[in-house]
Amino acid sequence: MKIDMAYGSGGKQTSNLINDIFLKNFDNAVLAKMEDSAVLKVNGKIAYTTDSFVVTPIFFRGGDIGKVAVCGTVNDLLMMGAIPKYLTAGFIIEEGADMETIDQIAQSMSQAAREAKVKIVAGDTKVIEGKGGVYINTSGIGEIKTNGISISNCRKGDVILLSGNLGEHHAAIMSHRMGIENTIQSDCAPLRSMVKNLLDNNIKVHCMRDVTRGGLATVLNEVSKSSSCGVEIYEDSLPVSVQVRGFCDILGLDPLYMANEGKMIAVIPKSQAKKALAIMQKSRYGSNAAIIGKIVEGSGVIMTTALKGSRIIDILYGEGLPRIC
Amino acid sequence: MKIDMAYGSGGKQTSNLINDIFLKNFDNAVLAKMEDSAVLKVNGKIAYTTDSFVVTPIFFRGGDIGKVAVCGTVNDLLMMGAIPKYLTAGFIIEEGADMETIDQIAQSMSQAAREAKVKIVAGDTKVIEGKGGVYINTSGIGEIKTNGISISNCRKGDVILLSGNLGEHHAAIMSHRMGIENTIQSDCAPLRSMVKNLLDNNIKVHCMRDVTRGGLATVLNEVSKSSSCGVEIYEDSLPVSVQVRGFCDILGLDPLYMANEGKMIAVIPKSQAKKALAIMQKSRYGSNAAIIGKIVEGSGVIMTTALKGSRIIDILYGEGLPRIC
Repeated sequence: MKIDMAYGSGGKQTSNLINDIFLKNFDNAVLAKMEDSAVLKVNGKIAYTTDSFVVTPIFFRGGDIGKVAVCGTVNDLLMMGAIPKYLTAGFIIEEGADMETIDQIAQSMSQAAREAKVKIVAGDTKVIEGKGGVYINTSGIGEIKTNGISISNCRKGDVILLSGNLGEHHAAIMSHRMGIENTIQSDCAPLRSMVKNLLDNNIKVHCMRDVTRGGLATVLNEVSKSSSCGVEIYEDSLPVSVQVRGFCDILGLDPLYMANEGKMIAVIPKSQAKKALAIMQKSRYGSNAAIIGKIVEGSGVIMTTALKGSRIIDILYGEGLPRIC
Repeated sequence: MKIDMAYGSGGKQTSNLINDIFLKNFDNAVLAKMEDSAVLKVNGKIAYTTDSFVVTPIFFRGGDIGKVAVCGTVNDLLMMGAIPKYLTAGFIIEEGADMETIDQIAQSMSQAAREAKVKIVAGDTKVIEGKGGVYINTSGIGEIKTNGISISNCRKGDVILLSGNLGEHHAAIMSHRMGIENTIQSDCAPLRSMVKNLLDNNIKVHCMRDVTRGGLATVLNEVSKSSSCGVEIYEDSLPVSVQVRGFCDILGLDPLYMANEGKMIAVIPKSQAKKALAIMQKSRYGSNAAIIGKIVEGSGVIMTTALKGSRIIDILYGEGLPRIC
């Protein structure tokens, strides 16, 4: 069955869509009350964030727009040292979308939410003209357990850890669009257990950031700017899978600027770096974690290349890969 | 200047857009930190909601998509007896949109947020192909001051108040689309002071609901269903302006099914109904408030017509007016 404009009317059809798809998949008592807002209890300091998702194709190897929409917002909360608790989901659906597609997306959101231990407590649906596309906004609330984690909190001597291989989400989306056959999967994943393991083991994390649009290069430049410091990384140390490396070589791509959806950096005091690395590597989605650099005096991001040269790493200019997330 | 896909890359251009437009207009310390999430302190019980906005045209008499995006979410929080505190804003911008348009929308959001006393603390921007359109999601958090206000809390004998004239947003949008010249303005407004006045004056509100998509007819049916009660309204008592009445007569529209963006119903114990009405009428946006009906035994919504007949009022079927909010 196809979705038409009536499903966005706020009347009978909207109500059917909510009952048949969203209440079924996001089953929980708060949502089922169908109030104008969810009523929740939270304690003390919270993290609060939002992200919209427009990735195309909607389904790709390793995930879909629903999974990305949950993981993206969950990871943004985690990066502030918060344990994700609640999400909202706002759907903008283009006329002509299959009801089954929306159901599959909702199932996938539900599954990712279960893994991340968050509840989807409020939602909204609008329908616009178009060709069957879907856009999803999620916002999220997390409870902050650990204070002071901030993009502006990196200090000279701190060590930079990266949680795994670069470029997989980007390469998976691009392969799909170009019709290239390979086994590259999106890395899309919720990093709850990795972050929780770091915090529960008393690692004094100074800063965390998920490495999404704009890639590692852009994130490290944001660190440099916000913490007024320099960043030094080593090309040799950057984890990239053989498949993605080959993909990049053929297409002239740089993994430093490629988007990821299940990778983070953590900036850690030098004294705890090895312990933190071991924790990351033992955590789900962290087996390829590596120490990739350090915080230094100065400004900007410098990479020591494999040939022991130096290269200035700037923020992403231009459009990168449109609609990557 | 036009927005192109590069503004959605997460790199340099995205950063410019954030700095030049969003940080400038939504100026506050939390947002300016540019973390992955806002860090906030909240106390106890909160209301949490989300809404996406796809209204077209973007600018109309009495408001624009930015004003609606703030008021809609603010009002959803208020309807749970919560005082709105924080919003997030997620923009999906179609390629080709004017930078100036986005700036105007952001200004309008900023102005509505000031009136509603909320801070926009987190945001996100994506760019998609298209013809210069804009979609906005807002989510919001409010602090609940009064417990037990719920769509399922209406009781037999309760009186139903409506805060003002019906159909103005709907008629304004429709006039614009049809090129009809008149003076009808959207009623889009944040109802903070009205709700606060009711609660501060110890009115024991059983239920509040803003009357948006689907119109009064749909909202009253939701009340009937959630509270397992009947609803009786009087056609005579429904406030509709002369202009909107004329507009409806010519086009064969029914104000009961027309969307509003600054109207609410409040369901109040009979003993307090007159006091509550006086408070509403003295509040901003409430001068035309009226008692329009009551909660009765049974189920469904019945209207006593001007000619003293009875008419069953059903939920909205079909598409209503697409992209009304």
